[in-house]
Amino acid sequence: MNDLASEQPAWVIGIDLGASKIALGLVDPQNRVIGRRRLPTLAPAGPQAAVARMAAAVAELRQAAPDERCVAGIGICSPGPLDHRSGVLIEPPNLTGWRDIPLRQMVADATGLPVRLEHDAKAAALGEYYYGAGRGAADMVYIVVGTGVGAAMIIGGELYRGPHNSAGEVGHITIDPAGDRCACGNVGCVETFTSGPALAARYARALASRHAPQAERPEIIHGELVTQRAAMGDPLALGVLAEAGEALGTAIASLAMLMDVDLYVIGSSVARCGDLLLEPARAAVPRHCFRSVASRVRIVCSELGDDGPILGCAWLARQLG
Amino acid sequence: MNDLASEQPAWVIGIDLGASKIALGLVDPQNRVIGRRRLPTLAPAGPQAAVARMAAAVAELRQAAPDERCVAGIGICSPGPLDHRSGVLIEPPNLTGWRDIPLRQMVADATGLPVRLEHDAKAAALGEYYYGAGRGAADMVYIVVGTGVGAAMIIGGELYRGPHNSAGEVGHITIDPAGDRCACGNVGCVETFTSGPALAARYARALASRHAPQAERPEIIHGELVTQRAAMGDPLALGVLAEAGEALGTAIASLAMLMDVDLYVIGSSVARCGDLLLEPARAAVPRHCFRSVASRVRIVCSELGDDGPILGCAWLARQLG
Repeated sequence: MNDLASEQPAWVIGIDLGASKIALGLVDPQNRVIGRRRLPTLAPAGPQAAVARMAAAVAELRQAAPDERCVAGIGICSPGPLDHRSGVLIEPPNLTGWRDIPLRQMVADATGLPVRLEHDAKAAALGEYYYGAGRGAADMVYIVVGTGVGAAMIIGGELYRGPHNSAGEVGHITIDPAGDRCACGNVGCVETFTSGPALAARYARALASRHAPQAERPEIIHGELVTQRAAMGDPLALGVLAEAGEALGTAIASLAMLMDVDLYVIGSSVARCGDLLLEPARAAVPRHCFRSVASRVRIVCSELGDDGPILGCAWLARQLG
Repeated sequence: MNDLASEQPAWVIGIDLGASKIALGLVDPQNRVIGRRRLPTLAPAGPQAAVARMAAAVAELRQAAPDERCVAGIGICSPGPLDHRSGVLIEPPNLTGWRDIPLRQMVADATGLPVRLEHDAKAAALGEYYYGAGRGAADMVYIVVGTGVGAAMIIGGELYRGPHNSAGEVGHITIDPAGDRCACGNVGCVETFTSGPALAARYARALASRHAPQAERPEIIHGELVTQRAAMGDPLALGVLAEAGEALGTAIASLAMLMDVDLYVIGSSVARCGDLLLEPARAAVPRHCFRSVASRVRIVCSELGDDGPILGCAWLARQLG
């Protein structure tokens, strides 16, 4: 169960470092995001410059606390791979040129505050588990459905990382050996159905099969366009989302059969279309696992949205010291 | 790591209760099976009668120990579902008419020894982990490939049971949505490729497509016949085992991607055909997960065979008191 009693009632700062933007939030002892800052990452300018701008934003946010000395620490999350223990970014593919960056130490040096580093999906999972859709659950799987598909699993209150810290790669399990080729080199991965780029590719293909080839240029189609059109009732876009949801439900059924977890919280960009994706996923689950298991599975949207990683980082910051 | 130091150097007895036979073994302090007994289960005669015959065999085995007082306890395993904490068999489908049987207490009363009850696949996994193919590993998945397909997972030295004690149902994850109908009601489960009955059904179908319908009566085909013929070079049987191995490898790849475990030990009847099944499984893994993950995955045969459950039960018995 969520052990809220162990938390310190401190003010903390959460930082969500992404490929294109950095979101910072000042979080009060009641776990409300009181102040926010949003900066461009400008990854090619390098990590030193990014950390300097983060530190300036941290200084501004601290002034919004009752006393800037009451800010106890910082949690920061970023795309992996990273080593949460040593606080080092290894070589995130979305942050070109950043390699073996001791981010935790750099942020600590620049701000004078203690810092914890975590993978972004794991931070979002912790946020939902303690403050969002996972409140009160013992076990939860958080599934990112955005540019890629991945999962962070919380089992009995602990992140399940796996011995090589690489558990939860749900986007690349095979669910259809006759499926599309995936960027990973294999065929029929969940990500070839359910990611933003997969929605775009499948919608473009569906359009091409209906229209003259020049009716819509494929390069202007992206995942958000597909979800927008589905929301407006476009039957081709709805079909693409139904396939995406079926794939997501198949993967969740496999997770439920293997891990025996009941609650699946879906977040990130594609998840914003809500039930257009989640209803086909829920419908698929009983077709891919035991009925006794399916009857326990719940698939819900993230409650915290973009605040999930910030609140998860806030939780991590509260565990410091 | 396996914590051999915590074990008591006692003599113990392991009992593997199956649908058709009961195997008992007296295990010495060096974990050798010193004496064995094998009885028919005679399930329709009921659990009382079976326990009475087990107790008689236990009394015989104790006489083979240096001093019958040095036998410290009994571990017993059986098909599930069961509650290992209360020691109750719930309603095993293979033991018709046995329902809510307090087996642990019944065996303790009949023998005067302390008893622990565990699911048979989990006991076999513990046996391999401590004394067989898993020695020295931190994490291991044991996969039963027999009449059905299931798994028992040991993570950081602990059985991973899941919150409802139903983790590891690897036989019923979907790997091919265009596959065969499974006994569970769904389509394309691992078990429709890799179990003994699946080998028989697929071989019969392959024969029927090559020969006149009467060339071989399908009712005489069983899993062991298929593995025997494959061992003799029968190309149809080899093809069926190649498909079975591919399915097993796909499932292992999913487990590796989700759970991040490296070592997979394959046991039970179909696994006896060894590399005829395991080589196609190994070849399939890199086609269904990241190369970095595939490079770590090892798929090996059970080392202990039928002694696995008995030695796992012996380990459990050593944890008593």
